[in-house]
Amino acid sequence: MPREKTMTGASLQKLLVIELKDIYNAEQQMVKALPKMAKAAASDDLRTAFEEHLEQTKGHVERIEQAFRQLDLPARGKKCSAMEGLITEGKELIEEYEPDHVLDAGLIGAAQKVEHYEIAAYGTARTHAEILGHQGIVELLERTLEEEKQTNERLTELSVDVNSEAVAVG
Amino acid sequence: MPREKTMTGASLQKLLVIELKDIYNAEQQMVKALPKMAKAAASDDLRTAFEEHLEQTKGHVERIEQAFRQLDLPARGKKCSAMEGLITEGKELIEEYEPDHVLDAGLIGAAQKVEHYEIAAYGTARTHAEILGHQGIVELLERTLEEEKQTNERLTELSVDVNSEAVAVG
Repeated sequence: MPREKTMTGASLQKLLVIELKDIYNAEQQMVKALPKMAKAAASDDLRTAFEEHLEQTKGHVERIEQAFRQLDLPARGKKCSAMEGLITEGKELIEEYEPDHVLDAGLIGAAQKVEHYEIAAYGTARTHAEILGHQGIVELLERTLEEEKQTNERLTELSVDVNSEAVAVG
Repeated sequence: MPREKTMTGASLQKLLVIELKDIYNAEQQMVKALPKMAKAAASDDLRTAFEEHLEQTKGHVERIEQAFRQLDLPARGKKCSAMEGLITEGKELIEEYEPDHVLDAGLIGAAQKVEHYEIAAYGTARTHAEILGHQGIVELLERTLEEEKQTNERLTELSVDVNSEAVAVG
């Protein structure tokens, strides 16, 4: 017997709130992880990219706080297990490798996984906010989504240099 | 004093092997998770998509085994913490929601995070295999990468129907 579907608008709203809590915690985890990734980078360009992305990420945290305000909810995170796992992978690389261009190649890979995670997370939350008619939240999420995509592209560009260094025998 | 960069070709090879071990384990985790996601789906189309992706994923596992054979290495995984976290998020949704179209919307979001993770992982490993001249492995990884991208697009298409159901009051 199919379950009654009354109140599903309210349920979708609940799903959006769970998604925002997840992203909020994920971004906070990245604020802690990015300085370590920057410190481990051998390439100046990669270090700069991580440092700049850190500043951007702090802005992403603030945007999620604005989204919570628009929903009249306190800004609260919920442990994002996926981001925890993604960051663990980066940490393992840093422990395993000396700082050099091979570690940089690995760090770029780890950071791109994070960006892809965030692109999927913001894309889904934006769609749900749109269906629910939260236009202000849609705009906040879209601005961050675009920045995550740009960061991902910048990392792809950086990987070309870093990868060619990684096979050079010096 | 900069560390000497001798043998970095060998180090990049080591990084590629770590990446293959990570993906191998990630795909094996998905082989276990997808039947649960299919079972939890309310929409027939979504259930079918998960079931078909399960069959595809089994093929992805075999391709990684072929890649290991080309490197004369035993096919061995290394716990992929990121995929573990991604799957945990899907499990939490299944525990939290009754099977309905809101859960489907959440499951699609969770599955798209997985696809994005895999797209980043295969993209990075393919680039490293290419630099190292492992053309056979490049082709194996690219075939899977294309399938992951197609799955992600199919999920986006499905989300349109599922999301409109999720706000319908029936």
